[in-house]
Amino acid sequence: MLTGEQYLDSLRKLNLKVYMFGEKVENVVDHPIIRPSINSVAKTYQLTEELEHEDLMTATSSLSGKKINRFTHLHQSSEDLVKKVKMLRLLGQKTASCFQRCVGMDANNALDSVTCEMDQKLGTGYHQRFRRFMKHVQEEDLVVDGAMTDPKGDRSRRPAEQEDPDLYLRIVDRKPDGIVVRGAKLHQTGAVASREILVMPTVAMREEDRDYAVSFALPSDTEGIFYIYGRQSCDTRKIEGGDLDVGNCMYGGSEAMVIFEDVFVPNERIFMCGEHEFAGMLVERFAGYHRQSYGGCKVGVGDVLIGAAAQAAEYNGVPRASHIKDKIIEMVHLNETLYCAGIACSCQGNPTLSGTYLIDLLLANVCKLNVTRYPYEITRLAEDIAGGLMVTMPSEKDFKNEELGKYIEKYLRGVSGVPTENRMRVLRLIENLTLGTAAVGYRTESMHGAGSPQAQRVVITRQANLEEKKKLAREIAGIRGG
Amino acid sequence: MLTGEQYLDSLRKLNLKVYMFGEKVENVVDHPIIRPSINSVAKTYQLTEELEHEDLMTATSSLSGKKINRFTHLHQSSEDLVKKVKMLRLLGQKTASCFQRCVGMDANNALDSVTCEMDQKLGTGYHQRFRRFMKHVQEEDLVVDGAMTDPKGDRSRRPAEQEDPDLYLRIVDRKPDGIVVRGAKLHQTGAVASREILVMPTVAMREEDRDYAVSFALPSDTEGIFYIYGRQSCDTRKIEGGDLDVGNCMYGGSEAMVIFEDVFVPNERIFMCGEHEFAGMLVERFAGYHRQSYGGCKVGVGDVLIGAAAQAAEYNGVPRASHIKDKIIEMVHLNETLYCAGIACSCQGNPTLSGTYLIDLLLANVCKLNVTRYPYEITRLAEDIAGGLMVTMPSEKDFKNEELGKYIEKYLRGVSGVPTENRMRVLRLIENLTLGTAAVGYRTESMHGAGSPQAQRVVITRQANLEEKKKLAREIAGIRGG
Amino acid sequence: MLTGEQYLDSLRKLNLKVYMFGEKVENVVDHPIIRPSINSVAKTYQLTEELEHEDLMTATSSLSGKKINRFTHLHQSSEDLVKKVKMLRLLGQKTASCFQRCVGMDANNALDSVTCEMDQKLGTGYHQRFRRFMKHVQEEDLVVDGAMTDPKGDRSRRPAEQEDPDLYLRIVDRKPDGIVVRGAKLHQTGAVASREILVMPTVAMREEDRDYAVSFALPSDTEGIFYIYGRQSCDTRKIEGGDLDVGNCMYGGSEAMVIFEDVFVPNERIFMCGEHEFAGMLVERFAGYHRQSYGGCKVGVGDVLIGAAAQAAEYNGVPRASHIKDKIIEMVHLNETLYCAGIACSCQGNPTLSGTYLIDLLLANVCKLNVTRYPYEITRLAEDIAGGLMVTMPSEKDFKNEELGKYIEKYLRGVSGVPTENRMRVLRLIENLTLGTAAVGYRTESMHGAGSPQAQRVVITRQANLEEKKKLAREIAGIRGG
Amino acid sequence: MLTGEQYLDSLRKLNLKVYMFGEKVENVVDHPIIRPSINSVAKTYQLTEELEHEDLMTATSSLSGKKINRFTHLHQSSEDLVKKVKMLRLLGQKTASCFQRCVGMDANNALDSVTCEMDQKLGTGYHQRFRRFMKHVQEEDLVVDGAMTDPKGDRSRRPAEQEDPDLYLRIVDRKPDGIVVRGAKLHQTGAVASREILVMPTVAMREEDRDYAVSFALPSDTEGIFYIYGRQSCDTRKIEGGDLDVGNCMYGGSEAMVIFEDVFVPNERIFMCGEHEFAGMLVERFAGYHRQSYGGCKVGVGDVLIGAAAQAAEYNGVPRASHIKDKIIEMVHLNETLYCAGIACSCQGNPTLSGTYLIDLLLANVCKLNVTRYPYEITRLAEDIAGGLMVTMPSEKDFKNEELGKYIEKYLRGVSGVPTENRMRVLRLIENLTLGTAAVGYRTESMHGAGSPQAQRVVITRQANLEEKKKLAREIAGIRGG
Repeated sequence: MLTGEQYLDSLRKLNLKVYMFGEKVENVVDHPIIRPSINSVAKTYQLTEELEHEDLMTATSSLSGKKINRFTHLHQSSEDLVKKVKMLRLLGQKTASCFQRCVGMDANNALDSVTCEMDQKLGTGYHQRFRRFMKHVQEEDLVVDGAMTDPKGDRSRRPAEQEDPDLYLRIVDRKPDGIVVRGAKLHQTGAVASREILVMPTVAMREEDRDYAVSFALPSDTEGIFYIYGRQSCDTRKIEGGDLDVGNCMYGGSEAMVIFEDVFVPNERIFMCGEHEFAGMLVERFAGYHRQSYGGCKVGVGDVLIGAAAQAAEYNGVPRASHIKDKIIEMVHLNETLYCAGIACSCQGNPTLSGTYLIDLLLANVCKLNVTRYPYEITRLAEDIAGGLMVTMPSEKDFKNEELGKYIEKYLRGVSGVPTENRMRVLRLIENLTLGTAAVGYRTESMHGAGSPQAQRVVITRQANLEEKKKLAREIAGIRGG
Repeated sequence: MLTGEQYLDSLRKLNLKVYMFGEKVENVVDHPIIRPSINSVAKTYQLTEELEHEDLMTATSSLSGKKINRFTHLHQSSEDLVKKVKMLRLLGQKTASCFQRCVGMDANNALDSVTCEMDQKLGTGYHQRFRRFMKHVQEEDLVVDGAMTDPKGDRSRRPAEQEDPDLYLRIVDRKPDGIVVRGAKLHQTGAVASREILVMPTVAMREEDRDYAVSFALPSDTEGIFYIYGRQSCDTRKIEGGDLDVGNCMYGGSEAMVIFEDVFVPNERIFMCGEHEFAGMLVERFAGYHRQSYGGCKVGVGDVLIGAAAQAAEYNGVPRASHIKDKIIEMVHLNETLYCAGIACSCQGNPTLSGTYLIDLLLANVCKLNVTRYPYEITRLAEDIAGGLMVTMPSEKDFKNEELGKYIEKYLRGVSGVPTENRMRVLRLIENLTLGTAAVGYRTESMHGAGSPQAQRVVITRQANLEEKKKLAREIAGIRGG
Repeated sequence: MLTGEQYLDSLRKLNLKVYMFGEKVENVVDHPIIRPSINSVAKTYQLTEELEHEDLMTATSSLSGKKINRFTHLHQSSEDLVKKVKMLRLLGQKTASCFQRCVGMDANNALDSVTCEMDQKLGTGYHQRFRRFMKHVQEEDLVVDGAMTDPKGDRSRRPAEQEDPDLYLRIVDRKPDGIVVRGAKLHQTGAVASREILVMPTVAMREEDRDYAVSFALPSDTEGIFYIYGRQSCDTRKIEGGDLDVGNCMYGGSEAMVIFEDVFVPNERIFMCGEHEFAGMLVERFAGYHRQSYGGCKVGVGDVLIGAAAQAAEYNGVPRASHIKDKIIEMVHLNETLYCAGIACSCQGNPTLSGTYLIDLLLANVCKLNVTRYPYEITRLAEDIAGGLMVTMPSEKDFKNEELGKYIEKYLRGVSGVPTENRMRVLRLIENLTLGTAAVGYRTESMHGAGSPQAQRVVITRQANLEEKKKLAREIAGIRGG
Repeated sequence: MLTGEQYLDSLRKLNLKVYMFGEKVENVVDHPIIRPSINSVAKTYQLTEELEHEDLMTATSSLSGKKINRFTHLHQSSEDLVKKVKMLRLLGQKTASCFQRCVGMDANNALDSVTCEMDQKLGTGYHQRFRRFMKHVQEEDLVVDGAMTDPKGDRSRRPAEQEDPDLYLRIVDRKPDGIVVRGAKLHQTGAVASREILVMPTVAMREEDRDYAVSFALPSDTEGIFYIYGRQSCDTRKIEGGDLDVGNCMYGGSEAMVIFEDVFVPNERIFMCGEHEFAGMLVERFAGYHRQSYGGCKVGVGDVLIGAAAQAAEYNGVPRASHIKDKIIEMVHLNETLYCAGIACSCQGNPTLSGTYLIDLLLANVCKLNVTRYPYEITRLAEDIAGGLMVTMPSEKDFKNEELGKYIEKYLRGVSGVPTENRMRVLRLIENLTLGTAAVGYRTESMHGAGSPQAQRVVITRQANLEEKKKLAREIAGIRGG
């Protein structure tokens, strides 16, 4: 396993082509806008070094028998699935942001079972290949970017029907030793902090979409791959020089648009190549795992937001007002309801053919559908408790200005004994989580990550077994026949 | 283990004093208003006889090593706790009502650990006694009524402060061989279908409330105990002679007011007698188990209601209208969210000192707090789908009337090919669950059973560890000190 | 104007054919199940006699210049529309039930403008005829049943496509002096308390549905018309002999299935006869007025339920607990939100061609859509405050029993100084409104009366002017072109 | 009346001391971060010049009989109150932001009636003074900043109890010709775009708080007053040089912290000076008017957000997907529910002693309480429809970069025929309203402006007349006595 430092070193050695604000970023690791998101990923390494977190942060590899970072693990039991959720909650608590490493973990686990079942059905040999890739990931303790979301163009058309055929990533050439692919993947969380990009199709496919049914992994700095960094709300506060207005100056999340400009993929790195009938299964399983993830990570971030709101109430002198307490209880209740679904879909997991455990798909989708709702309400309640000052406060530069600072110090003080700066800091943190860079992760990603709410509703319908429920009702009602 | 028939026979042998509509009920078991609730309890015996349900319905006794009905089991693992929830969901699905046997199970499990810890702390000898009682319960396969809720009089006053000292059940006399108690227990679910009444205090207590800190078990037909049957919405439809208007003519739930008129309790049946400092723990644990229960039983009833709504939509010819489908998905989603919490608090259970497993208290309270909300929304959606006919339909007698019946047959028909009666039956079932006898269980009991919502909020606050959350927030915000 | 007594006398003179529980009702006015609903209607007469309510309860006829009961008025200003809403809220407060007279008022106002516009477009002569009918209604101060809802059979098929052609009421014969109609109208609120039945089509229609585009008025005891009384939750409590368990022993609502068995309609009472292109307008306007109505009547009933919950809390000794106060504020807030929409759609009303004022259709539909939601939440909160006793209390007969009564008196007492009976009465009232006969009006009718929620959503979409909103957005976003 | 240009000129002549990012702003009017908010205010002048808006935008002065900008009007009828709400909705639609001029209008109207009633009760002479001030405001067509919110320090302490006595603005010296005041006002919307600052107390007060019961008006550039500009989410995007990433490059809102450093107020500008018993009335009326305002302005902004979401759905190719349509209907429904309360509290307004009309306080508070909820849900639904691209898109600079731009153009295209830039623009507008500068107005201000939700709940309780509701319930339930 790598330490946090070793991970940072490994990133420095990469030759990533990352663009931001119209320019190429020369030093990705130390760029002030990018660095907090890399710090979040680094935290997934650092916590393995702390004894109290070892049980959650590490696992014993089913491939090598060695102790590995759990983020590279193939889940071998429902207990593993539960520990995954707890690990993610812990990291959410420690970073108050998206730490970006689950996507790869979830992609790995999904591909493991799908390649196995594909081979069994079609006689292909993907599973062995994929397991070799997984051993490499575990040994090198790699961050993997699970790359699924295509641009999709006109949403009312299927991949092969788009005017521009590249709006879903596709195979443009087939060679003896590999394939050439073209396209883009959007919203790639943690892409610029990754060592590998693991590409998957983004929807169920039909025969005519065959060239789009492709999955493979490539080092993130492979020739032809480049990144355009996504801009977040308040991103440039990180280059203003201070630390107060940022709200969370240490950690953050990041997304990028990843472009594949006719990239060559060698055969040993291809895990699906035209088997369109398995695209849907891969999407469903990856999404299932990732919907489970949100029952951990967002809960951890929620813990920080609840704590911040409770702290702000204390600084305001009203921690015991009954309406404040009620709002905090409600935040806790909603947050733990999310956690319940994360835990439940895990403990109800079952082994797949490859031995890797899969979560309960119905409950994982229920989990994520709640995640598209409750963080918004938790956010609203936090803004209620925080008060308007959160968005009307003077800037850090005003506060640090000798002349103005004393007025701010005087007039923005809450309960006596607490420095005004503390109050400002906790309000800036709430701003960060509700409106700023972290709101991108806590709100928008809660909504759309791992699929938008409608996607969860579709799976829930499919998994709900309504016929059985109707039968139960007919029996009770004394109805014979249909 | 008893069969359903043996259970009914055992009830017939009891000499219960039950009153209803101002008169003594001569034959409790066959009274048409009571019988459906006894049928629900009997189902907890009958299902043990079906092979497919054996794993959920039975367990191996930790006391005797014998196979027992799970309702008499002391949970020995978190797997046991999970199976309990699944068993309750199954019974909810089969009876579409409250089957009344959980209260005793939950009381038994709570008392098992509390008596053990009380003995350890105070040097008392209650645990052995209680275990002897439990062996009896398991061997005879008894239904136990867990009796907690006192009348409480003026809610702003504690037990010892009430104008009438009997408004909480209390010890009125202490004798060498036992005690004499007086008081009442309200809302006693399944009391008239029980063989034993297990009394517990209903709130945390102080020194001055000592006489109220009492727990014991007595056969349900003990001298001095009598029952006034609670009336439910639409209860008398069951004595009208038909089966259609009842909605669910086979199963139901029941509650009674149980009065203890200076009842003698022999020493061997006393499990707490003045140890006020353990009253709170007993309430919290019993309530915790019972709040978990609702994550199973109400979900099962919800399954039937969802099925009934889906069936009604089909009979109306609109099963594919997008707004109907959306409402059904939402019902499923809410129902499974309840289930998630039931499962999560179970799988996160831990052993107590006595070896009996306790659920995660925070998550069990989150479970119940959701139960005070979602069944109401599921109900609302079901009424939306059902349409107004549910409450404006002619009576069964009109339908059976030769002259009127043909008009009803003609004009209340939905899609062709389905008898009008089927449509009426499914609507009457929905009425039963949303407004009728079963609404008492599915709505009001969801609200107040195992404690009203405010009780859950109090426990959630206590269990939420807000100090830790504030610390997380301060760390992220870069705040040093408080 | 009639007094309440005169109204009752006029009802007694009718020769209505009403069936209930398979038998013909001999004395409709004094039947204990029916009488409370007639009392509610009678209240619309009685309140005109009270000076303080004169301004709301009466109006000056635009047809005769005489003072009339506002229920027979054609609204001549937006002030009239506002007063209508206030009158309905008042009646809701006084009856705690559906008082059944708005449907006719709303039908009258809708037909007034639609017949006028139909005549102008098609050269027909319906408006004069209808005005003659209205003068009769005003002079005789008649209760009119506005009869719209057809059975509809298979909801996926239009009127002319149903297997049984009678599932929408239709013209089966055309004669020189009139037409013969056949069919049924369901959910007819107040039908058995009405003197006239005013029939309207229930959906927009096409050319092929011409025989279904029919509107007319007939005396309620016309040959060939008969009524099957709809059964409500807890209806038979009214024939048990007491008054406590009924909850609201004075007032109620009622619905009936009205069957038209080849009924002859003379020409002067026909207001639409085949003009299918105006069926949609009539439905939309009637529904619009009726959706406005709910912003008054349900708010009045809500006032009683809020009062009952506050009273119950007081009897329990907890009126000042912060969580109780919060729930009551929330109930008030939701109730007044409904009222706001009732008032807003009224004060934004506009004159139609006939001079009669029409509400703002968008806001009236917004009003009703909220009514399909908030009464359910108000209900839930009332059940929360009431506590479980509401559904587990012994019956009135137990309470009146000499022996049992003293135990009930003792153990169901709340704060001292308040008779136990008062507490039972207020809980039975809450039961009545949330589960019993009045729940049919307060819940199910709120959902489906004046059209189910999806019907409101369809109108809202049509009225929302999304193109204009998109244009606003494009302008702000600096988008040129589409 | 001034034109937009004349207003800007008048601002340029002011000598405001405004600080931002630690520095004094030299040219307030043309500062790129400030200018959009001044543009919004200017719009309140420009729209008076458009004939179609004349009826809403102007009024006839009750003081001079001249045509004036409605923002300077004293409302003379409930029709005026309704027009105010419609004017605010219009401006919300045109600016998609807070246009900042209502606070002064609402303060003026509140002071008008309060000074009149104060004079009558106490024999003071404030009303005449205030009317002279109002004539000046109307003649010069001035923007007035209504300054209410004090810093408040420890919220659990009253003004006179704070450790630092300046945490509520107070009189520090009384002179023959005036008073000297010290303190600060926070969250001052539009302060830097105002010509006058009208100060009011922020809470009800007692005898000992007398020095805090002070109201007066001063030119905004009076000696001793200075402004620290509040920073908003994404504020600095406005100085990046482009127009796309800003989302709304033309309009915005602003807040400032206003500091009063021992400022002299001449007698003729003092409208309350120690009359503590009228502080509460002034707060309640100002807040009432301002809570009404939100039923207009936020609805207008909501119209733009709904339009943007509908436009985004169209660009994505899914405008007809049923789940998208449903979400848009829901957004419209919630938005119009807000409007209903705005209209209802206006049309139910009544004259005060001074002749100026006051809104219905209960309904105005219901209005605002809904505003603390629905914009958050509208926001959530907009984010759902927009998709994740809103927060992961490359920057404008990337898009304008020749090399990168073509990839972005290619891969971020939606339906064919629509330039990618249009899609980016509409998403940036949604980002602006949900996370960016406008979210400060649409979310946080909706929550806390005119008082936080708990303040509304307190007024609702006071205005709800629960005693009357309990009486209604007792009558229906047949309860005699209490």
